[in-house]
Amino acid sequence: MTVPSYRIGSIPGDGIGLEVISAAIEVVRKLSSTLKTFSIEFTDLPWGSDYWKKTGSYVPEDYLETYRKFDASLFGSVGAPDVPDHVSLWGLLLAIRSPLQLFANVRPVRTFPGTKSPLANPPPEGIDWVLVRENSEGEYSGHGGRSHVGQPWEVATEVAIFTRVGVVRILRFAFETAQSRPRKHLTVVSKSNSLRNGLVLWDEVAAEVARDFPDVTWDKTLVDAMTIRMVNNPHTIDTIVGTNLHMDILSDLAASLAGSIGIAASSNLDPTRKNPSMFEPVHGSAFDITGKGLANPLGAIWSAADMLTWLGEAPAADHLMECVKAVCRAGILTADLGGNAKTQDVVNAICEEIEH
Amino acid sequence: MTVPSYRIGSIPGDGIGLEVISAAIEVVRKLSSTLKTFSIEFTDLPWGSDYWKKTGSYVPEDYLETYRKFDASLFGSVGAPDVPDHVSLWGLLLAIRSPLQLFANVRPVRTFPGTKSPLANPPPEGIDWVLVRENSEGEYSGHGGRSHVGQPWEVATEVAIFTRVGVVRILRFAFETAQSRPRKHLTVVSKSNSLRNGLVLWDEVAAEVARDFPDVTWDKTLVDAMTIRMVNNPHTIDTIVGTNLHMDILSDLAASLAGSIGIAASSNLDPTRKNPSMFEPVHGSAFDITGKGLANPLGAIWSAADMLTWLGEAPAADHLMECVKAVCRAGILTADLGGNAKTQDVVNAICEEIEH
Ligand SMILES: CC(C)[C@H](C(=O)O)[C@@H](O)C(=O)O
Ligand SMILES: CC(C)[C@H](C(=O)O)[C@@H](O)C(=O)O
Repeated sequence: MTVPSYRIGSIPGDGIGLEVISAAIEVVRKLSSTLKTFSIEFTDLPWGSDYWKKTGSYVPEDYLETYRKFDASLFGSVGAPDVPDHVSLWGLLLAIRSPLQLFANVRPVRTFPGTKSPLANPPPEGIDWVLVRENSEGEYSGHGGRSHVGQPWEVATEVAIFTRVGVVRILRFAFETAQSRPRKHLTVVSKSNSLRNGLVLWDEVAAEVARDFPDVTWDKTLVDAMTIRMVNNPHTIDTIVGTNLHMDILSDLAASLAGSIGIAASSNLDPTRKNPSMFEPVHGSAFDITGKGLANPLGAIWSAADMLTWLGEAPAADHLMECVKAVCRAGILTADLGGNAKTQDVVNAICEEIEH
Repeated sequence: MTVPSYRIGSIPGDGIGLEVISAAIEVVRKLSSTLKTFSIEFTDLPWGSDYWKKTGSYVPEDYLETYRKFDASLFGSVGAPDVPDHVSLWGLLLAIRSPLQLFANVRPVRTFPGTKSPLANPPPEGIDWVLVRENSEGEYSGHGGRSHVGQPWEVATEVAIFTRVGVVRILRFAFETAQSRPRKHLTVVSKSNSLRNGLVLWDEVAAEVARDFPDVTWDKTLVDAMTIRMVNNPHTIDTIVGTNLHMDILSDLAASLAGSIGIAASSNLDPTRKNPSMFEPVHGSAFDITGKGLANPLGAIWSAADMLTWLGEAPAADHLMECVKAVCRAGILTADLGGNAKTQDVVNAICEEIEH
């Protein structure tokens, strides 16, 4: 019997990216060899700050072509202490998200065994949100510049670009996501009171798209007020959609309120499936703990599970997440979650859990 | 003996703005007539949504000239259910902040008697932060537009403009603010990893200005990570400075973490004192409770106290805030703070406290 087989581009990047991606690969290989329901092959793409130091570029010239040959990619993190952040991030991470039209950045935020909400009164049933972030335009369009650099009359601009195509597709995707969940509720984050062009377009499109989803209830909250709602009324929230920058900010807040910042996962999806989607932990390259075997691999492993679901292997992904939860419940946690396990201890425990 | 005398422009605006401003005026008049250390005169400027419905404009044509005649202004709130938010806010509030170069929006966030932090482990000594928001440019420059409205290929832009003048003056003001406080610590909020023009300028200027303040310690945190820091490490924070939009978001979060969202105050300052500064509660026009006498007047009263400090009447302002705290401690609180007092009950209690 032949099983489906997947080719994954692995982009560990910099810092602890290498450690968490190798951890995730080990776990997924164990899952595949144990379940035997799919086969999977990882190809290392050594793009990142070391590559940049050697070649002057974060990626080879034909990187998009190379990237497109895979079924999906697993991304670690990028950024090094001796490179300006905007150089490394636009060199690699942001050079994939938008050029490949991975327009939906999906960030689940969930209470997890072993994690603890910093709120005095978190919802008794726990937090279970899905954040949908526009991932291809808006504040991250990369347009603008600096004139008269260094002069007293210097001016710098950042041009946020919102296309109707871009706004329609992300809002449609968000309504679909909300529709697929039990509560069928969507919160549209806006700021149309001060941003009177792009965000007014955003509001208009939301109202239009909503008409196609009569079974989804929805509301609108301004981005500033949304922080208050997350803190004071977390139980009123289910699925959230917002612009690239607004959700960058709100997704960090959400993960911190659920107590899951160190394990947060994200999917950079092309819902049209023309391009391979990319899966990445939310954390950064953390050079302060790089090479010490201390990194928490759960963000990368959770991202790998989301990748398997996207590829059509939901049962395997669900099984993997059950194993992860069992290991967390058993208290095998890295230092950031208050435990004393090393990266490899967590990996070994999950692999054992998979075998049994 | 003559005492200093002040002329204040009162701009109640819309909704509960009228109720809280008349409350603040009553309290300040009582303070003046009791202490007799200053005299104060309020002139009503009836600008707002009703004015717009009659005249098609939120303000008279010569509003800047009128405004400039006062020593300061007290602002309620603006926005009505039957007017698009961007029309009312650009019509009045945003038509004052930037055109009058009130470039420093200062938002104190403090644990208060009668308020409760939603955090499980708030700092034992309470929260005492000062947020400094750039108030004249950046994401609120108002530039951009919509092309091909309604067409599938529609595009809308929001142009954030950062001038070196604008960035230098707000960072300098923030360092001075930090310097005036016991901890002398400033956190500069940035997002230069993705916003590679305006926010890189921001970072460069921060490092330059910092050299003039060797006695102030400072650090830099990305806006997304700042939400996590506020939730998980509130004790590491003292004074914060950030862009117009970043601090709009973070100031709501900060007030909610201190449990003081309903009473938050703000000062829109022109630190050069060329133009009269404006003082406003952070809350909105709240049409759902308008006219019921339920609005919490403390945001407006706190703003009025900050106005008195700005005018040089710090002892009177401090006395007023002590009276406010005594009333809170006595449990005379409006519904939003868990009490059952009405607006006028709070005003009466503060006035009595002032008299004794
Ligand atoms: C590293 C940075 C460019 C990135 C972003 O701002 O998108 C990160 O914060 C994220 O949330 O993925
Ligand atoms: C009402 C709105 C335009 C305003 C802003 O975004 O500045 C408000 O949220 C504030 O914080 O003062």
